[in-house]
Amino acid sequence: MNWKKWVHITKLDPDRQLDRDAIETVATSGTDALMLSGTLDVTPEKLAVLYDCVRDYNLPIVVEPAEPGGARFDGMDLVFVPSVLNASHPRWIVGQHQRWIRDYPIDWSRVVPEAYIVLNPASSVARVTGSDCTLQPADVAAYASVAERYFRFPVVYIEYSGTYGDPAVVQAVSEVVSDARLFYGGGINSAERAAEMSGYADTIIVGNAVYEAGIEALTATVRAVR
Amino acid sequence: MNWKKWVHITKLDPDRQLDRDAIETVATSGTDALMLSGTLDVTPEKLAVLYDCVRDYNLPIVVEPAEPGGARFDGMDLVFVPSVLNASHPRWIVGQHQRWIRDYPIDWSRVVPEAYIVLNPASSVARVTGSDCTLQPADVAAYASVAERYFRFPVVYIEYSGTYGDPAVVQAVSEVVSDARLFYGGGINSAERAAEMSGYADTIIVGNAVYEAGIEALTATVRAVR
Repeated sequence: MNWKKWVHITKLDPDRQLDRDAIETVATSGTDALMLSGTLDVTPEKLAVLYDCVRDYNLPIVVEPAEPGGARFDGMDLVFVPSVLNASHPRWIVGQHQRWIRDYPIDWSRVVPEAYIVLNPASSVARVTGSDCTLQPADVAAYASVAERYFRFPVVYIEYSGTYGDPAVVQAVSEVVSDARLFYGGGINSAERAAEMSGYADTIIVGNAVYEAGIEALTATVRAVR
Repeated sequence: MNWKKWVHITKLDPDRQLDRDAIETVATSGTDALMLSGTLDVTPEKLAVLYDCVRDYNLPIVVEPAEPGGARFDGMDLVFVPSVLNASHPRWIVGQHQRWIRDYPIDWSRVVPEAYIVLNPASSVARVTGSDCTLQPADVAAYASVAERYFRFPVVYIEYSGTYGDPAVVQAVSEVVSDARLFYGGGINSAERAAEMSGYADTIIVGNAVYEAGIEALTATVRAVR
């Protein structure tokens, strides 16, 4: 599965509802993959329900657990596992991962490590992880370099979950990252925003737009990056 | 410089004194490399003094800064940069590295990232970093796996600085690490200890023995791993 060619990922939250028509529209929109992910209240049962709704569309389906211990490999093509580099406590960087590896069998061939840099202080992920969201573009670029050059992450993920980010930050990161794929997520709900961020990021992730801006907005973001 | 073939490294502390005869003995002992490293009170001036004493022996000389910001590339063959995975604060895992990359030019071709797991609670490095030294062998092995498989560190370093470690811990780590080089350091002051730990570790690091057990002890540890 060559996920490094994906330019558009749609993130679906197992804790939110989509009707069958909306799921059909998402799955046939031209998005490269569906990522099942959410910070709050994602249970294995909700994940299984969502998986059953999307499994028959012949699209790659990946899961991104809020905590590594929540990773499920059954049926998933890949498991994207975040480490929040600007978190305030080691548990979000390495601690949960250590316990995951200690307590569960891991199929490493399906694990994609992600270096998250979380930048919207109002987001659930920022609050839960205590992320330092006061970073300037040069600070974020330095985190991206440490991710790519020191830790050798294959993905650097600039996460503005819930709001549209600063293009100057994503640009600064794009100038230092070369081998890793640069993912951008947050506030992409129009063709214009999709085009702007995909000018810097290798891959954009569209999530809330599916639920909030209307399903046509998702289709517009796909067209904008093709 | 193929550091992956080194089986014996001698660690010298810029804050401690060695006379010229002792340095001569170290440098001609058969050790594979000299690592200039120390946790406390290492100044650039002290590092430069030690470097001048050892530079003419045609041995690889590497530096391992206590903080990445202290890294000096001048004259050094390689710079080994630790991340303390079981530290209590992110600064020892990723924070100082981020500031180092932000504030200094880095010659990545000479940087070797090291995943430290610090296990002697009485050591300076454990106290400074607030490392969790209560880990059981399975816990340490899980940190080693996360280092190798998730973060892709080329070195996993089991650090018992100042005391001889538990061979069962090093054995447990050796059973899960394959691509990374397994370094062991702490309390190796005899041929027997060198032989025991090198039964599990790829590379042993001998430090305090140089200063405390007498210089002949160092030579014995070299012979034990050849």
